[in-house]
Amino acid sequence: MGNSFGQLFRITTWGESHGGGVGVVLDGCPPRLSLSEADIQPDLDRRRPGQSKIVTPRKESDTVQILSGVFEGRTLGTPISMWVKNEDQRSEAYSEMSEKFRPSHADYTYQAKYGIRAWPGGGRTSARETIGRVAAGAVAKKLLRERWGVEVLACVTRIQDVQVAVDPNGFTLDQVEATPVRCPDLAVAERMIELIESTRSAGDSVGGIILGVARGVPVGWGDPVFDRLEADLGKGMLSLPATKGFEIGSGFGGVAMTGRQHNDLFRNVDGRVRTTTNRSGGVQGGISNGETIYFNVAFKPTATVFHEQDTVDVHGQNTTLKPRGRHDACVLPRAVPMVEAMTALVLVDHALRHQAQCGA
Amino acid sequence: MGNSFGQLFRITTWGESHGGGVGVVLDGCPPRLSLSEADIQPDLDRRRPGQSKIVTPRKESDTVQILSGVFEGRTLGTPISMWVKNEDQRSEAYSEMSEKFRPSHADYTYQAKYGIRAWPGGGRTSARETIGRVAAGAVAKKLLRERWGVEVLACVTRIQDVQVAVDPNGFTLDQVEATPVRCPDLAVAERMIELIESTRSAGDSVGGIILGVARGVPVGWGDPVFDRLEADLGKGMLSLPATKGFEIGSGFGGVAMTGRQHNDLFRNVDGRVRTTTNRSGGVQGGISNGETIYFNVAFKPTATVFHEQDTVDVHGQNTTLKPRGRHDACVLPRAVPMVEAMTALVLVDHALRHQAQCGA
Amino acid sequence: MGNSFGQLFRITTWGESHGGGVGVVLDGCPPRLSLSEADIQPDLDRRRPGQSKIVTPRKESDTVQILSGVFEGRTLGTPISMWVKNEDQRSEAYSEMSEKFRPSHADYTYQAKYGIRAWPGGGRTSARETIGRVAAGAVAKKLLRERWGVEVLACVTRIQDVQVAVDPNGFTLDQVEATPVRCPDLAVAERMIELIESTRSAGDSVGGIILGVARGVPVGWGDPVFDRLEADLGKGMLSLPATKGFEIGSGFGGVAMTGRQHNDLFRNVDGRVRTTTNRSGGVQGGISNGETIYFNVAFKPTATVFHEQDTVDVHGQNTTLKPRGRHDACVLPRAVPMVEAMTALVLVDHALRHQAQCGA
Amino acid sequence: MGNSFGQLFRITTWGESHGGGVGVVLDGCPPRLSLSEADIQPDLDRRRPGQSKIVTPRKESDTVQILSGVFEGRTLGTPISMWVKNEDQRSEAYSEMSEKFRPSHADYTYQAKYGIRAWPGGGRTSARETIGRVAAGAVAKKLLRERWGVEVLACVTRIQDVQVAVDPNGFTLDQVEATPVRCPDLAVAERMIELIESTRSAGDSVGGIILGVARGVPVGWGDPVFDRLEADLGKGMLSLPATKGFEIGSGFGGVAMTGRQHNDLFRNVDGRVRTTTNRSGGVQGGISNGETIYFNVAFKPTATVFHEQDTVDVHGQNTTLKPRGRHDACVLPRAVPMVEAMTALVLVDHALRHQAQCGA
Repeated sequence: MGNSFGQLFRITTWGESHGGGVGVVLDGCPPRLSLSEADIQPDLDRRRPGQSKIVTPRKESDTVQILSGVFEGRTLGTPISMWVKNEDQRSEAYSEMSEKFRPSHADYTYQAKYGIRAWPGGGRTSARETIGRVAAGAVAKKLLRERWGVEVLACVTRIQDVQVAVDPNGFTLDQVEATPVRCPDLAVAERMIELIESTRSAGDSVGGIILGVARGVPVGWGDPVFDRLEADLGKGMLSLPATKGFEIGSGFGGVAMTGRQHNDLFRNVDGRVRTTTNRSGGVQGGISNGETIYFNVAFKPTATVFHEQDTVDVHGQNTTLKPRGRHDACVLPRAVPMVEAMTALVLVDHALRHQAQCGA
Repeated sequence: MGNSFGQLFRITTWGESHGGGVGVVLDGCPPRLSLSEADIQPDLDRRRPGQSKIVTPRKESDTVQILSGVFEGRTLGTPISMWVKNEDQRSEAYSEMSEKFRPSHADYTYQAKYGIRAWPGGGRTSARETIGRVAAGAVAKKLLRERWGVEVLACVTRIQDVQVAVDPNGFTLDQVEATPVRCPDLAVAERMIELIESTRSAGDSVGGIILGVARGVPVGWGDPVFDRLEADLGKGMLSLPATKGFEIGSGFGGVAMTGRQHNDLFRNVDGRVRTTTNRSGGVQGGISNGETIYFNVAFKPTATVFHEQDTVDVHGQNTTLKPRGRHDACVLPRAVPMVEAMTALVLVDHALRHQAQCGA
Repeated sequence: MGNSFGQLFRITTWGESHGGGVGVVLDGCPPRLSLSEADIQPDLDRRRPGQSKIVTPRKESDTVQILSGVFEGRTLGTPISMWVKNEDQRSEAYSEMSEKFRPSHADYTYQAKYGIRAWPGGGRTSARETIGRVAAGAVAKKLLRERWGVEVLACVTRIQDVQVAVDPNGFTLDQVEATPVRCPDLAVAERMIELIESTRSAGDSVGGIILGVARGVPVGWGDPVFDRLEADLGKGMLSLPATKGFEIGSGFGGVAMTGRQHNDLFRNVDGRVRTTTNRSGGVQGGISNGETIYFNVAFKPTATVFHEQDTVDVHGQNTTLKPRGRHDACVLPRAVPMVEAMTALVLVDHALRHQAQCGA
Repeated sequence: MGNSFGQLFRITTWGESHGGGVGVVLDGCPPRLSLSEADIQPDLDRRRPGQSKIVTPRKESDTVQILSGVFEGRTLGTPISMWVKNEDQRSEAYSEMSEKFRPSHADYTYQAKYGIRAWPGGGRTSARETIGRVAAGAVAKKLLRERWGVEVLACVTRIQDVQVAVDPNGFTLDQVEATPVRCPDLAVAERMIELIESTRSAGDSVGGIILGVARGVPVGWGDPVFDRLEADLGKGMLSLPATKGFEIGSGFGGVAMTGRQHNDLFRNVDGRVRTTTNRSGGVQGGISNGETIYFNVAFKPTATVFHEQDTVDVHGQNTTLKPRGRHDACVLPRAVPMVEAMTALVLVDHALRHQAQCGA
């Protein structure tokens, strides 16, 4: 259980790191959307290992294939099945993993829960699982753009102690894609890249923060009381590997303010109800208020570090483990399209839910 | 939509601030659990207005009544319906609210989404909605305690700029309940109470942070990939009114560390696999690892402040609003049982899901 | 589990025969529908015991109360909670039931499944459970009528060996309500009433068939492949107490025909695509085709008969049981509003689902 | 929407007749079940076209490939993705179908609902969709057999006017598989085969009835009130293409009996509570009672007949259509494994649900 996300625009992902591949089935997509692999591959390329010098050099093309749900270039309203074949399966490089639990990975908990685990490449816990999310997210982003004029975007704002304040309304996809670290501030991006490279050289790893935004969301999306927009966004983000925190609008920082300071006052601006500030982060009472939605996601440093560390083996005996092979010293650049994907999936789901109940 | 939470231990809450009452239907409770109103009322009393000098004096007994699902003192396995009657309905005190949107409340978004809203007392957006959650949460807490030896607890660790570090393993319910602010550190609690009282005198409000913990959770609860334990906990917390952030384990602070510093190393301790640190917060790969689960929840300052503020009316015209009546200057003390309730609901749901798939 | 029905227009029923009452929470109702108890009570009155000489004389007013989700006479889009208090609780009359399992009732299976059961009045297995369905169904029928011009109706076409062929397009609510047996053919109705009365005098019981119809359903409702309209209708009907069969359109009788005989040919009639026959029963490939939807539901004879019958007691020992008290000799007249309710609930759910995915 | 079935043992099928293939993702399978393609292929072969002289000669091997969820021959507890490639895609043979709606097929309703349809081979409405169900059903059948000792089986009991009464406890898989028509009575089977052949020669088609049984189901599976075992079985069966009716136990025939005649009396047999008759069909109050579950499913005659028939085209104009190509004159033999699959899927789902709530 647990491999599906969304209610009306619903994805189910499948696949292990080593095996037949990874994929996703997307059910509930509106019919007659123009769609082909060309709409999806670019985001998969942004997520792919080996795309730049600061990410893991695992060599796979990650070429997506649409197996169903599209006819003559348009969606049918039936399930869209997409898959990416696994290519680079050097399982021998990981053989020690069959016997020892990697610290701060999910090896131990999977083994304890299921009594079995696919240890090569981390099996289901591999970041390859997110391929299905990113593929479906690309469909969601296209729908948002074409049907509702909504733009979903994310960027890296912090790597360990290197950080920059980014205005949720003040950056573009081009700026994000200008450097491999996906921070729109070029000067800071350079420092981040240096930090990641020196960290990798040291066999260590770093985490950071990704800012996610959605611009142009109409008033009224989100379903109180449990399926608030921020609750579903939070769940989506916290379902991404290596995430440890989520905050929307003023977030943890807003705690230091008083109510008088924090409140977003309403004003009529050009005939439209707007707020003069946006500490709410575009959501009030779980429902979008027409302002830009923005939130931060905290990613812990990558668990794989190339130093010998204490651990236990599958028999519960104390031992040590020094990983070999290849791994990202920092996952955040590749996680940017994942954050976008989960954001878009949540928004389309709520757009359709709003359309169902409120007819618009 | 959106008024249900959980898959196998599933609650549906209903009710507006002013109307027949508020309640909850709990479906999926295991049979033969000893249960009566006496198990539930104490948590409702902790949530209740008027319980101490620092919370809103709205006078309601909030007496719960179990209408179904229990026979001769034990659960039947059928839906447990619980309700609390609304008593204190001075709707005239709120009449300006029918015409004006309160800043940073959900009045505007509800009106925009549904084309109608129950303005007296905030209708469905009132904190009274959480009565149903707390009632069902009390059942969940009892189940956790009796069937799995799990203890769920929460406390206030920060009010605006007054804060204290609390060890997730180092505080008790008695310490939490020792002061009306529900911070287990008595000296800090006193300062918090002073801050809340002075804030209320100034007609202003403050927010803060609640720490939630679950001790004794066995290894193996949680369903990757989307229904990770932390994702469901995050969703649960972010569905509570006034929340703006959630972090588990090292959270946003962990971002400053490297992987070598952050990793929780495994050790065999007395024949059991343990971690020497707990930056993971008791969850790895979405599955509990047997360590204490702990997380922080950020609450914004209460939106109702007793000062005149800019806003718009239901016709979109600029105006001002100065609330009258009664309102918490700080919701956190009353939110402690809400955090416990959502934690317990998530845990029981995953306990049953684990039992379903893995048979234990 | 199992006490909810529907995905977007979702009901959760609760309550036992003897206890606080029975009720339903309806989530997902579109906002701004005019609604009051007066819209619901008539169908509850049709379902009520004691309404005529041929149904059980249990004396309860079954007065519904709307507790939430309606404000100033219109729906809010929030959950609509409705309940009916239990009044007539002569539990002493049923005391033998605490020790013995009634044949062909659910006493034994409940006890075996849950290890406990509420024996007074049959507890959750009592037909009182359907009060919640009928109440929510009344809301659904009103929505169908007002928003889509759809009419849902049902009638009795067979009681044991007394039967009549009824044209799905050829009967009215007035005709159904003209006699207490709810068969629109007056002559047949009279024979049915006689049969029920003589059966009751003999302490025995009879079953029969109810025809359900939905007229005016637009083309396009229904979600292949699993949530076909007929599959959801079938599930809805088979979830009613005492049902043993469901057939749509030509049903079991269609088995005797060849494809050439059975096929519904398309013709353009006044600019609209119609079929010249309707053996499909208004549904093709799981989706409504614009023709009248009609189906039959088989109800077994009531299990309670006033004769001594073999059974076992709760200790598994052979014994006999002769029921006392009051019970319908035939449930079909009271089941007519239940069939209508489940039909309407399925249709609204699919109307909203269609609106979500296909935007109309 | 609508392409998933089950709650805890949940399948999502995908695929059109002509395209990348058809497949299924199965989520919630218990871990450590021994599983390989060899467990699945036999049922796909029973479902496959071209397996005998009385079914459509479409030539495809329908070879299943497990892409995920299995490691070293055992299930992981993660999603099991299975697919079958489409091979035989002579779309030119169907070109008239792009312009005309086949009578009693789903061409018109799909076009009306979605504004688009994949006309080659019927697209999503093709019986190829059931490949995914049968594949997942094979996993379910294996689980039922190995974990609970439950045997699921189905057979053809009627083709048009040729029929035989089959004792639910009195036939074996070998008897079913002894003839291509899958009726365990050899003499009747021969007459059925003759009827199908002569019907095919005449360019016509026939329907019939399939009996489904489950033997050895323990007491206690099934969730009242909406997810009764018979309601979920009914939904499963009515979701199969060409089905028009479902009845369990005494079904429509039970309507002719009185309660005294119909009741199943309880007796203690060798220390176990049994019923002396089984008109309930193994289910009471929605919960299995330990007796054999049995039910009938009505299939209409195949809609494709090789005669010119009236219809309309995609522009709504009257026209005629005479199908070409290949099609089953009777789908029932191939539908037998589909009935078994849906039965097994429902039972495993409820077995896990029972395990979740009642812990056994």
